Amino acid sequence: MKNCFEYSGFDFKSLYQELWPITRSITGKGVRDSLDIISKTAPFDKLEFPSGLQCFDWEVPPEWNIEDAFVEDNSGNRLIDMNENNLHLMGYSIPLDKKVSREELLEHLHTLPEMPDAIPYRTSYYKENWGFCLQHNKLDQFTDKEYRVRIDSSLKNGFLTIGHAYLPGETDKEVLLSSYLCHPSLANNELSGPIAIAAIYQAVLNAPQRRYSYRFLLGPETIGPIVYLSQNLEELKNKVLAGYCLSMVGNDAPLLYKRSRHQNSIADRAAANILSFDQRDSEIYDWSPMGGTDQRQYCSIGVNLPIGYFGRALARRSYPEYHTSKDTLAIISMERMDEVVEAVLKCLNTIERNAPYLNTNPCCEPQLGKRGLYPTIGGKRASDSLLRIKYLLSLSDGKHDLIDIADSLRIQTPELFPETAKLIEAGLLRAADR
Amino acid sequence: MKNCFEYSGFDFKSLYQELWPITRSITGKGVRDSLDIISKTAPFDKLEFPSGLQCFDWEVPPEWNIEDAFVEDNSGNRLIDMNENNLHLMGYSIPLDKKVSREELLEHLHTLPEMPDAIPYRTSYYKENWGFCLQHNKLDQFTDKEYRVRIDSSLKNGFLTIGHAYLPGETDKEVLLSSYLCHPSLANNELSGPIAIAAIYQAVLNAPQRRYSYRFLLGPETIGPIVYLSQNLEELKNKVLAGYCLSMVGNDAPLLYKRSRHQNSIADRAAANILSFDQRDSEIYDWSPMGGTDQRQYCSIGVNLPIGYFGRALARRSYPEYHTSKDTLAIISMERMDEVVEAVLKCLNTIERNAPYLNTNPCCEPQLGKRGLYPTIGGKRASDSLLRIKYLLSLSDGKHDLIDIADSLRIQTPELFPETAKLIEAGLLRAADR
Amino acid sequence: MKNCFEYSGFDFKSLYQELWPITRSITGKGVRDSLDIISKTAPFDKLEFPSGLQCFDWEVPPEWNIEDAFVEDNSGNRLIDMNENNLHLMGYSIPLDKKVSREELLEHLHTLPEMPDAIPYRTSYYKENWGFCLQHNKLDQFTDKEYRVRIDSSLKNGFLTIGHAYLPGETDKEVLLSSYLCHPSLANNELSGPIAIAAIYQAVLNAPQRRYSYRFLLGPETIGPIVYLSQNLEELKNKVLAGYCLSMVGNDAPLLYKRSRHQNSIADRAAANILSFDQRDSEIYDWSPMGGTDQRQYCSIGVNLPIGYFGRALARRSYPEYHTSKDTLAIISMERMDEVVEAVLKCLNTIERNAPYLNTNPCCEPQLGKRGLYPTIGGKRASDSLLRIKYLLSLSDGKHDLIDIADSLRIQTPELFPETAKLIEAGLLRAADR
Repeated sequence: MKNCFEYSGFDFKSLYQELWPITRSITGKGVRDSLDIISKTAPFDKLEFPSGLQCFDWEVPPEWNIEDAFVEDNSGNRLIDMNENNLHLMGYSIPLDKKVSREELLEHLHTLPEMPDAIPYRTSYYKENWGFCLQHNKLDQFTDKEYRVRIDSSLKNGFLTIGHAYLPGETDKEVLLSSYLCHPSLANNELSGPIAIAAIYQAVLNAPQRRYSYRFLLGPETIGPIVYLSQNLEELKNKVLAGYCLSMVGNDAPLLYKRSRHQNSIADRAAANILSFDQRDSEIYDWSPMGGTDQRQYCSIGVNLPIGYFGRALARRSYPEYHTSKDTLAIISMERMDEVVEAVLKCLNTIERNAPYLNTNPCCEPQLGKRGLYPTIGGKRASDSLLRIKYLLSLSDGKHDLIDIADSLRIQTPELFPETAKLIEAGLLRAADR
Repeated sequence: MKNCFEYSGFDFKSLYQELWPITRSITGKGVRDSLDIISKTAPFDKLEFPSGLQCFDWEVPPEWNIEDAFVEDNSGNRLIDMNENNLHLMGYSIPLDKKVSREELLEHLHTLPEMPDAIPYRTSYYKENWGFCLQHNKLDQFTDKEYRVRIDSSLKNGFLTIGHAYLPGETDKEVLLSSYLCHPSLANNELSGPIAIAAIYQAVLNAPQRRYSYRFLLGPETIGPIVYLSQNLEELKNKVLAGYCLSMVGNDAPLLYKRSRHQNSIADRAAANILSFDQRDSEIYDWSPMGGTDQRQYCSIGVNLPIGYFGRALARRSYPEYHTSKDTLAIISMERMDEVVEAVLKCLNTIERNAPYLNTNPCCEPQLGKRGLYPTIGGKRASDSLLRIKYLLSLSDGKHDLIDIADSLRIQTPELFPETAKLIEAGLLRAADR
Repeated sequence: MKNCFEYSGFDFKSLYQELWPITRSITGKGVRDSLDIISKTAPFDKLEFPSGLQCFDWEVPPEWNIEDAFVEDNSGNRLIDMNENNLHLMGYSIPLDKKVSREELLEHLHTLPEMPDAIPYRTSYYKENWGFCLQHNKLDQFTDKEYRVRIDSSLKNGFLTIGHAYLPGETDKEVLLSSYLCHPSLANNELSGPIAIAAIYQAVLNAPQRRYSYRFLLGPETIGPIVYLSQNLEELKNKVLAGYCLSMVGNDAPLLYKRSRHQNSIADRAAANILSFDQRDSEIYDWSPMGGTDQRQYCSIGVNLPIGYFGRALARRSYPEYHTSKDTLAIISMERMDEVVEAVLKCLNTIERNAPYLNTNPCCEPQLGKRGLYPTIGGKRASDSLLRIKYLLSLSDGKHDLIDIADSLRIQTPELFPETAKLIEAGLLRAADR
């Protein structure tokens, strides 16, 4: 018994740099271009859902595309120019080309007085509006009485795009991995999630065989999973055994896991085991409706899939760059990207291999020495490996699976695989009927 | 949805001052006079139970009344005079007028050597006896060989009096509130309980309507609830949904709640929620047979009503004035009286309004924006009110009621009422069938 | 109700001194001689099991006896002599008398480089081999090219001996107490266990009557209980109600209790109660397959007897003398020997007397005063004894036994016996039907 998925590193930096400049939103060309870039490493199909499609309490909005946007003063100086930073334009701003008074303009400008050199990130997806976002300390440049506002956007019937990939395994029971891809030039929130998903996907793709099937989804936040779930709810309810949502996983803060509504799904048990006995400081939270981004849709009352959430603890507390122009590649830690990918792959390895086994010699301990599993000279203290053997034999009563046994030993489940293999080979453990 | 009971303050001080001088015991005129005073604010009926009435393992004792009591030395100096402090006479002392030797007298004097300037409080309800209580440092005044002892008491067949009030609500399921009124001039133990009950009663009386009925009881400690329960056990078992005993609630110490034997009755859940998320330091204890005064009768094995106990933490630990002449109005804090009345009323509001609700859009989150419940411009951090809305929607799966949801949010249940009302009005929540 | 077993001290020292010099192993004369010595205080029968007997996955090994063993250099100097310390010979060394080269000899010498002045304890029970153990700092004396090795051992079909004693009680439900007796001159591990068992046995023997029967077992470690269990499994499964394994109980370290696989057997509940409310610092652990020596056999999946383990906390952590010549009487504390014997006897007293009782007056508290169980003069704080009475009455609802009630009071169960007796005598408690 050994790991199903191996990780030998990933070139996060190139992918960040290639995806960074693109102006994404919940629909439009930016999403499709981004999926094309990711697909060079981890091939995704594009599922297209038409504007107006009813999905539960929502409907697919018009498709939004943007060419250019700026605000000029009377002298023709571009005081705000989307080409400088795509956060300057409020997402889903309607097309516009007109002169506006200073008063009217100010009603459409968004700033952060408490962080005066940062551009905030703002959107108006579901109400027609327009707006610009800028550094608070640039407001005093707006001394003219009138300005020209130009927004070369289009907002019309089209499609909402979701990146989808499916890797079949021995059974059609599946593991679902999801992040979102709808923010413009923001690094941690949210390029870190899709990029981590690409690295995980690559490792799953390269595995020689898989027990479970794997589904990867990259759509817009909130409306993406709502659309996908509304079209595929029964299938997912029947097939999804475990899953993880990832977002805001790239900054330098402790790894955070929030359980699914099930609280003890196999996804939750694997993640709690891996994070509890990790080298680094990570945090595990019970299910709650707070945070978790798309997990809230996957774990809503009527959907209730066994899907947990990986994020970073500071994201819940003091992630000051959140939704501002300060969320750049400078705050991304490649070691933290490695950490989350490794943790998720350890969870997937745990889910792949976990099972209850039965001790075939349940009365007293078996004589390990005659099978070469115990030193022939007695009197020395037991090794770690011998301790694992004793736990595996003693707890394999049909009520405990490998995760339980690893939890008892306070180790990560994959560390049990070598001794489990030895005991199966020696005929001392056999798979329990499930 | 809003609070059922409102509290706008209460004149505790006047009631303390009027009740303070009266010589109360477990029967007699003092109890009746005290109930008359309280009834000016919160009208109580007097239930009268005859001496000799069997009640479970007990019987109603003779009625005791007292006119005067003193001890004189040979020169006619009153060394002990009940008119100075009604604690000087041991409660239920038999009538007496005789000369006694110094030796005999000393056998009937009670003092506190460890608190030499305090008069202890002593009684002998169920064995005929007499006695006087005094400051230990006055014992050296007793130098004569002989003394005159006079006790103008009467001890004969009569009645035990219980103050009773019943405020009907929409159903005959009821909430019971109880304290005791049998101690002479002792302030915290026990005028604080009956006075807090009077303030609560007034708020319940003034409510425009009530879902539940309310019963208030003020009788003597121990024998009071025993008599009342023995006559009304089946009715109370059928009707009482929740209840609270109060005693020793007026001194300046953290509020204490002890759960009912049920441990998780609605009374317990409401109190644990209110106290856990209070501003002040309060303490919650599991059920135990320790302390709790009359709660021990209400929660005895065969009675087992879902009734909790409110007291003060120091009462369990270091309340040195307990049962001495130092338990005066000087140790009463009016802020602490407000605190306990407010806490109990918050519990009653919680009990009145608590229910499980159902999210009418269980698949994914509903679109709050189109109902005016979500800001149309996205990107900002969520407000507290929006967080409450998300919790209400996410946890209203029929398994969680408002108390559960408030516990998850770490807030007091009444803080959820405004958002609950908004969601019901928007058609997003509906009452669950129970 | 009073204690069944009394302890008035035991002469541990004499027994240690008499047992110390004997060369014991898992079979042979040393075990029989040791049992004869113990039997002068606590009479054991010898059960003999023939070599080759199949027992679960094991078989009884040949019987090993040893007369003498040494290593001489070319000049006839005995560089290693078993007469100096019986640890010098590896247990179960085969008979040998030959010249060996320095190289061959070194392959058979065992030392502890990290503790250079200590002789390690080594055995080779199940693989034919020979060896000597010595101080690492003596290795430089081995400068000759050739040595004479002589081992006067015999290894042939014979018997494995288990000391067994059975003290009948009123029922054949029984309590099993076990330790092991197979180590040569090692004091804490393992003469402390058998000697503690002898002291416990003496107290059980001297009891005027016993509710339960008692079985005591002293055999070799691991193979001893495996042999005994393989021959008596069904009987033990039917009869054993509770039990304790003891080992390494004599050094000066906190007492340790590890629960049985049942986790809450009566043995576990009694031990947790006694140790939790002990004066000294003791530690309680959940069941696990780590440590516990013979408990691992008694609690293996298919045996699963409700048997806990008593040891010492440092034995799990830093007991540096373990399995070396430094484990002498010098590290034994007679106070700690008293402590473990007293703790086990308190557990046995708890098991003997534990039962649920029923309050015969379940509605409200009974009137204790008229039965002489409450002071006639009221107003004083309750005594400890009165508190125990209140707990016994309030918790005797058929769902709580004496251990539960003692746990609630945070006292050791035997401290409840006097008040339990008083309440039974007063007719206020009666035994519950079980």
